[in-house]
Amino acid sequence: MEQEWQQLNEQVVSLLKTARQQVLQKMQEPLTVAAKSNRKDLVTNIDKSNEQFLIAGIRRIDPTARVLGEEGFGDALTDLKGRVWIVDPIDGTMNFVKQHDHFAMMIGIYQDGVSQLGYIYDVMNDILYAGGPQLGGVWANERQLTAPTDLALSEGLIGASGPLVIHDIAHMQAIVHASAGMRVYGSAGIEMIHILEGKSLGYISHLKPWDIAAGKILLETLGVQVSTIDGRPLDMLSSNLVLVATKKAQRDILQIEEDDVSL
Amino acid sequence: MEQEWQQLNEQVVSLLKTARQQVLQKMQEPLTVAAKSNRKDLVTNIDKSNEQFLIAGIRRIDPTARVLGEEGFGDALTDLKGRVWIVDPIDGTMNFVKQHDHFAMMIGIYQDGVSQLGYIYDVMNDILYAGGPQLGGVWANERQLTAPTDLALSEGLIGASGPLVIHDIAHMQAIVHASAGMRVYGSAGIEMIHILEGKSLGYISHLKPWDIAAGKILLETLGVQVSTIDGRPLDMLSSNLVLVATKKAQRDILQIEEDDVSL
Repeated sequence: MEQEWQQLNEQVVSLLKTARQQVLQKMQEPLTVAAKSNRKDLVTNIDKSNEQFLIAGIRRIDPTARVLGEEGFGDALTDLKGRVWIVDPIDGTMNFVKQHDHFAMMIGIYQDGVSQLGYIYDVMNDILYAGGPQLGGVWANERQLTAPTDLALSEGLIGASGPLVIHDIAHMQAIVHASAGMRVYGSAGIEMIHILEGKSLGYISHLKPWDIAAGKILLETLGVQVSTIDGRPLDMLSSNLVLVATKKAQRDILQIEEDDVSL
Repeated sequence: MEQEWQQLNEQVVSLLKTARQQVLQKMQEPLTVAAKSNRKDLVTNIDKSNEQFLIAGIRRIDPTARVLGEEGFGDALTDLKGRVWIVDPIDGTMNFVKQHDHFAMMIGIYQDGVSQLGYIYDVMNDILYAGGPQLGGVWANERQLTAPTDLALSEGLIGASGPLVIHDIAHMQAIVHASAGMRVYGSAGIEMIHILEGKSLGYISHLKPWDIAAGKILLETLGVQVSTIDGRPLDMLSSNLVLVATKKAQRDILQIEEDDVSL
């Protein structure tokens, strides 16, 4: 059984490395960019072609699995029964378009809704974060990661999405004030890499399943808490206001949420 | 004359590379961290020792020059007459302390207040941005940079300091809304590197002379505008609310400032 997952892992790593080469090559040509829900929610030809490529590869690796993909080339899911792969072909599309940097490919593998393996690939730095319960740890390429220090909110930096801060959703401004500072990197995958590396203690953002599926698996493997902003489990089939944080910082942030409710 | 500047440049590059090695070595030991004006304004033993090291090196290279340093080991300046070196030994000290990443060493060299040479060293990535009028361009290590595309505000990402966004100083929220998105990297040096590389179109923050001295020289060499938030020249001996932007984005941002004044 363990060997089966090891082999699956090797196939996913190989698939992602090939996908990276293709993306780097296509980035040499002009992108085709379109707006989705609004002018800041973008999709490019590469988001689409890379999702198609990844899903085709997943179907070869795991023919009976179902796949949920951001750009809609997977299956329409109403439950998480059996093996489900959740795919974000380019996370941080605005960074991808404007910076050609600071974006990620992400894959999360679930079995009956339970975390198995997660992958966040920092494409430009060529660092693949891979791991989960089925591998018994998390690796950044060959380097095994240690669990981030359990910092209190005041002791570390918190990642956030810009709109949450500006509109002060979920007491974001009070949370930032209580922290050591706010950072905004523009990609859920890049934010989660910072938490895995112990460079941020948390991240708060509205996230779709493909934004958080891989990170949830990797983060929880290292003891980082992943919940909704009010401490409930995520609904992995829908959008959530997600709170990722060290145990202590999660407690501090839930206290800020609770204090306000009691006003 | 040109050769004299070339030689000076080589000496500064060599000094910065040695400083980097020392900083990396000292980072292996626990930091001594103290708060300055408030708990988010930090200084470490390495900020201090590195400033002392850099200033000693500058005095060897250019004995008659005056030096303005963040941590106070230089000269007390009341004017910019003659040759003045402005030094930030560790820019982004909070990142340095919490992330051990995303910080920079910076040096700006002025002659009678006029830009000569600038240096921003991304220490962890080992990329030294160096250039200015006396070198006729800007280089990232061996790679010469081309001028960033003159993007309008709506076409690119804008860097900001967290407090400006949260307190909506200088219409920061309207500016972010009009842009393609906000990024917060927590270091003026790292923000300016993003602009030099064309990954952000601008940056707005309250900055001291050592935060902007190097960047101003490098950015202006590539046609990026550096001014106060209302379009006036910076006072290089004091704190400024600084607007760095492409020409078009500067125009768009100044219009936002002006529109509000006319209300």
